[in-house]
Amino acid sequence: MGKENSEKKMVSVEDRTMCEATQQMLTKARRDGVKLDLDRGYEMKPCPIGAESACCKHCYMGPCRLNPRDPYKKVGVCGATIDTIMARNFGRNVAAGSASHNDHGRHILELFRGIIDGKVKDFTIEDTLKLERVGKSLGIDVEGKEVLEVAKELCDELEKTFSNVDGEMPFTKLAPEATRELWRKDGVMPRGAMLEIMEMMSRTHIGCDQDYDNLMKQITRTALADGWGGSMVATELSDIMFGTPSPTLADVNMGVLKEDHVNIIVHGHEPAMFEGMLAAVNDSFFIEEAKAKGAKGINLVGMCCSGAEMMSRHGVPHAGNFGSTEAIIVTGAVDAMVVDIQCIKQGLAEVAKCYDTHLITTNPRAKIEGATHVEFDEIDPRKCTDEILSKAIARYGTRSMPIEIPKKIQAGVHGFSHEYIEYMLGGTFRGSYSPLNDNIINGRIRGVAGVVGCTNPKVKQDSVHVALVKELIRNDVLVLQTGCSQIALAKAGLLVPEAAPLAGPGLAEVCETVGMPPVLGLGSCVDNTRILIAASAMVKAGGLGNSIADLPVAGCAPEWMSEKALAIGHYFVASGVYTVFGVGFPTIKETKFHDLMFNGLEKKGYGKWGMASDPIEIARMMIAHIDKKRKQLGIDKARERTLVDMSDRRELAS
Amino acid sequence: MGKENSEKKMVSVEDRTMCEATQQMLTKARRDGVKLDLDRGYEMKPCPIGAESACCKHCYMGPCRLNPRDPYKKVGVCGATIDTIMARNFGRNVAAGSASHNDHGRHILELFRGIIDGKVKDFTIEDTLKLERVGKSLGIDVEGKEVLEVAKELCDELEKTFSNVDGEMPFTKLAPEATRELWRKDGVMPRGAMLEIMEMMSRTHIGCDQDYDNLMKQITRTALADGWGGSMVATELSDIMFGTPSPTLADVNMGVLKEDHVNIIVHGHEPAMFEGMLAAVNDSFFIEEAKAKGAKGINLVGMCCSGAEMMSRHGVPHAGNFGSTEAIIVTGAVDAMVVDIQCIKQGLAEVAKCYDTHLITTNPRAKIEGATHVEFDEIDPRKCTDEILSKAIARYGTRSMPIEIPKKIQAGVHGFSHEYIEYMLGGTFRGSYSPLNDNIINGRIRGVAGVVGCTNPKVKQDSVHVALVKELIRNDVLVLQTGCSQIALAKAGLLVPEAAPLAGPGLAEVCETVGMPPVLGLGSCVDNTRILIAASAMVKAGGLGNSIADLPVAGCAPEWMSEKALAIGHYFVASGVYTVFGVGFPTIKETKFHDLMFNGLEKKGYGKWGMASDPIEIARMMIAHIDKKRKQLGIDKARERTLVDMSDRRELAS
Repeated sequence: MGKENSEKKMVSVEDRTMCEATQQMLTKARRDGVKLDLDRGYEMKPCPIGAESACCKHCYMGPCRLNPRDPYKKVGVCGATIDTIMARNFGRNVAAGSASHNDHGRHILELFRGIIDGKVKDFTIEDTLKLERVGKSLGIDVEGKEVLEVAKELCDELEKTFSNVDGEMPFTKLAPEATRELWRKDGVMPRGAMLEIMEMMSRTHIGCDQDYDNLMKQITRTALADGWGGSMVATELSDIMFGTPSPTLADVNMGVLKEDHVNIIVHGHEPAMFEGMLAAVNDSFFIEEAKAKGAKGINLVGMCCSGAEMMSRHGVPHAGNFGSTEAIIVTGAVDAMVVDIQCIKQGLAEVAKCYDTHLITTNPRAKIEGATHVEFDEIDPRKCTDEILSKAIARYGTRSMPIEIPKKIQAGVHGFSHEYIEYMLGGTFRGSYSPLNDNIINGRIRGVAGVVGCTNPKVKQDSVHVALVKELIRNDVLVLQTGCSQIALAKAGLLVPEAAPLAGPGLAEVCETVGMPPVLGLGSCVDNTRILIAASAMVKAGGLGNSIADLPVAGCAPEWMSEKALAIGHYFVASGVYTVFGVGFPTIKETKFHDLMFNGLEKKGYGKWGMASDPIEIARMMIAHIDKKRKQLGIDKARERTLVDMSDRRELAS
Repeated sequence: MGKENSEKKMVSVEDRTMCEATQQMLTKARRDGVKLDLDRGYEMKPCPIGAESACCKHCYMGPCRLNPRDPYKKVGVCGATIDTIMARNFGRNVAAGSASHNDHGRHILELFRGIIDGKVKDFTIEDTLKLERVGKSLGIDVEGKEVLEVAKELCDELEKTFSNVDGEMPFTKLAPEATRELWRKDGVMPRGAMLEIMEMMSRTHIGCDQDYDNLMKQITRTALADGWGGSMVATELSDIMFGTPSPTLADVNMGVLKEDHVNIIVHGHEPAMFEGMLAAVNDSFFIEEAKAKGAKGINLVGMCCSGAEMMSRHGVPHAGNFGSTEAIIVTGAVDAMVVDIQCIKQGLAEVAKCYDTHLITTNPRAKIEGATHVEFDEIDPRKCTDEILSKAIARYGTRSMPIEIPKKIQAGVHGFSHEYIEYMLGGTFRGSYSPLNDNIINGRIRGVAGVVGCTNPKVKQDSVHVALVKELIRNDVLVLQTGCSQIALAKAGLLVPEAAPLAGPGLAEVCETVGMPPVLGLGSCVDNTRILIAASAMVKAGGLGNSIADLPVAGCAPEWMSEKALAIGHYFVASGVYTVFGVGFPTIKETKFHDLMFNGLEKKGYGKWGMASDPIEIARMMIAHIDKKRKQLGIDKARERTLVDMSDRRELAS
């Protein structure tokens, strides 16, 4: 009876996701009587007080609830105002997001040190050119030094990212001087990530920091310790160890699963285990084992962010984003889903059980009740990967339920590192961001947008990402993408040079000249730091102001859901970028804290937050900001000249 | 009209607090139309879902709410079960509590380093004997070394408390070997506090650690990094810099305010600013200034935890605990309330405004909207303290409203450091915990209880503390106290040797022999680490088992409210102590996570949690645990022999 009731109120699968493969699997799951996150998300009535950040659980005199409709009417038992409560809640969100990326970055650094020390033998330093470049950018003298010597110095320098208790975080050196001056002046220059996170937690304790403006400083410092800290360490060292991405053709969507192969999905965030799997999966022993069970081979595919990294670096197929991780198990074709950290839904355990799929956790910091734990150790990766392969192959041999793989597959070009963008625009010998700046100044490109972030079952999966990006490129805004957003657009077929005609005439012209898509995929969500570095390079290339805040750029996470997204959003705002979030936002309009985030910060020289749920509305807001910056730079006239001319448009269309 | 309505439903002041001075001020506040925390706490209806930790705000797919009455019926949108949700919430509480104490400890360490470096000139190393003792306990060779040399080595060693990323936290050396072995075996030995807190935040992110048992390990490590980390550093270094407490007679309660003096209250947690105030207040310049305004002098008193430290070390009068901080301003006699960090209610700003009191924040990490900020800098303390004195004296000169100071005052003996307890029981030349152990073994003392923690307006202020402690000593349980609980009992007159007759015959006999009260006040809430060290010393003295978990001891925070209390509670549990909390607890009975905390941990060799709200019920639980431990130690018979004899009792009574 309960089941009938819940079926009655089910909305159509088309309303839950625009991904046809996911629709197909959601339909099958409902038929099979298996509840997926996409339906749980629809059925869960979010707490209306918590959703607007009007409740506080920071002590046991409460939990206190204020009225989001009349936020200044009451205060908490301790006297905390709505501004204190929202600032503290937001501070803890940012602390958790920043902690996640710094935890990730710190483990990448440990792996790097393991290689240098010789303890880790299965990984190596792949990109010595990047090692040298990153070393130099931090002031390390690399002349005449051995690779391992430079690596050791870089490792020691980057260790400070986490352990510093004063001074300035190493990678902040890469930001434009004017941006750094603002951070120094305002007292928000990050020291070490571990300290900033601890201080954020301490200051949000009952009866500690109770001035939303002062709290904002620590929130900003904690967020900057993510973007210019752990996330950047993760990206830069991963490139050095596993190779800096350059454009690679890769298939995306559930159609990458192969019914006649042993299918192994790796899903999570850290690249090391996935790299280990990639090495192990080509072992002829296991290929023979798989064949002995009747399979044609072993098919290793990625999902979520570690999937995006492996796709960017090695062209490993990608089966889908966050919104499809439970749905894909419904195919019955997944012999093992192997996970590490972050955004791994606990619901996977139940779905995997229903479809006899091995759900295997590999990281000691992230176990799941009901999953099998096979620990990954960088010093002996094969111990873990071999056990996973054995389990997956065995499961293939005993497959009993019907397999249904959606026949959806889409090729796209991924792997646009900031280094590649520089090379692509400037050429081998004159690699430079100047051609990009020139095209912005002359108006062919109106501005640059970063569209990134999660999917969220509160909204129709992928739909806001796709509509927003289409509207932005139509208006000559070059779009940079990462993470689950990039996968959404890849599935929609926009990550190919052939999508250029969807762009406005100016952007289309540039894309056609260079041979690039109007939407550039930069990798996983830690790789958002590539956007920070690209933006800094744009400032340094000249002609577009002195700080990141001067650039005609904007960012958006239209279907965000995680605390990492809030930390990322805030490090972009703190770095000078106007950042719009979709879905909803944990603040109450008409409050002082909200006004600080959505207006006040910009007045102080930072970027600012924006919020809207409709993709066209979001695009309008981002474009208006870009146009405002163009005007401030005095380059608004150029664009009028370039684009108003309809003959250009006809010429391009022909 | 609103006012009449709210008055209609007001309960009697006697139901809000058993502190008569606070009752008097609450009555006056109501008359004056000023709302205090004690009434806000009564009027706020706590969120019933949040109170049982059945909601999750860790991502924006929610906030998800499960049903505390049927906790396994639903899961969160991500699939998180009630056990995952409760464990994550509890983990973040402990992270915040541990962060608070580690922030405190780290700043004490910085001050210590400032003294060593010679940058700080207004503070010094007061207790060189303790410096030597603590140095030796950590394996530092002190022979033939200068004070500053030992201090430097100790400082470097203790820095690791915060910065370590592997190995074992320095002060864990002080724990019994069996206790340390358990931590190692279970993988919960704390490394560095900053790392543990960051990892706790990372692992509680959406889709990361989702196995309550695995989460518990990190929760335990994060809590141990408080008790054997930042808190212990704070206590031990504060003793070294400001003096190790020994019994001191001090006055407690609002009657310590003096109508004809400039009254300055210092309230908070870090001793440095208060020490600075104590130095400045004796400056004849300001005394003359005060006299020029018609005052007889300047009256400096403490509240809350820094107040408890100053009372223990220097006999500075103490005006009341957490529950009285707003109420005391209603006297009109407070010329300035000066605060630093933690448990400073934001509501103080509004009450201070009503009574024309200066509310002055002094710490850059804890500002309050509406308060005056006068920053305290250890390098130039007088800059801050002199400005505060000027403001307070000026306010005295313009006092206009009627003053009403409750005539309540109670003397008590405070300042029982663990070193003093050792000395008191063993004497100068044979200082030892053996006499305590002997009295436990022979049954005169049944066991030892730590009764500590906050007050909480959800329950009648002080009432549970006082009834519980009375019941414990009546049953021959020696009570150690800290923080707001100690102040509650001091007001009730139990911290004097004359209270011995309230104890059972065995404990009374010991008290009378030694000349000590049956309730020993150890200081502030960071000073709970004195109890850890005392417990470790009891194990080392022999005869009571090999680990802290073997001891006939128990702990309680009967009116807790803060996340620090949860961190403290959990470090006691993790160290082997049965710890009972009153008021309520953020878990749901009949869940696996609750069972792990309240039963499972004990089976693994730790202590365990308990929960009850009635003081007699709490005492019964604690005594039953003590008796269980006595039985396991084989000393239950001794106690029967000693205490059943009524002639003993008659003899003592005479």
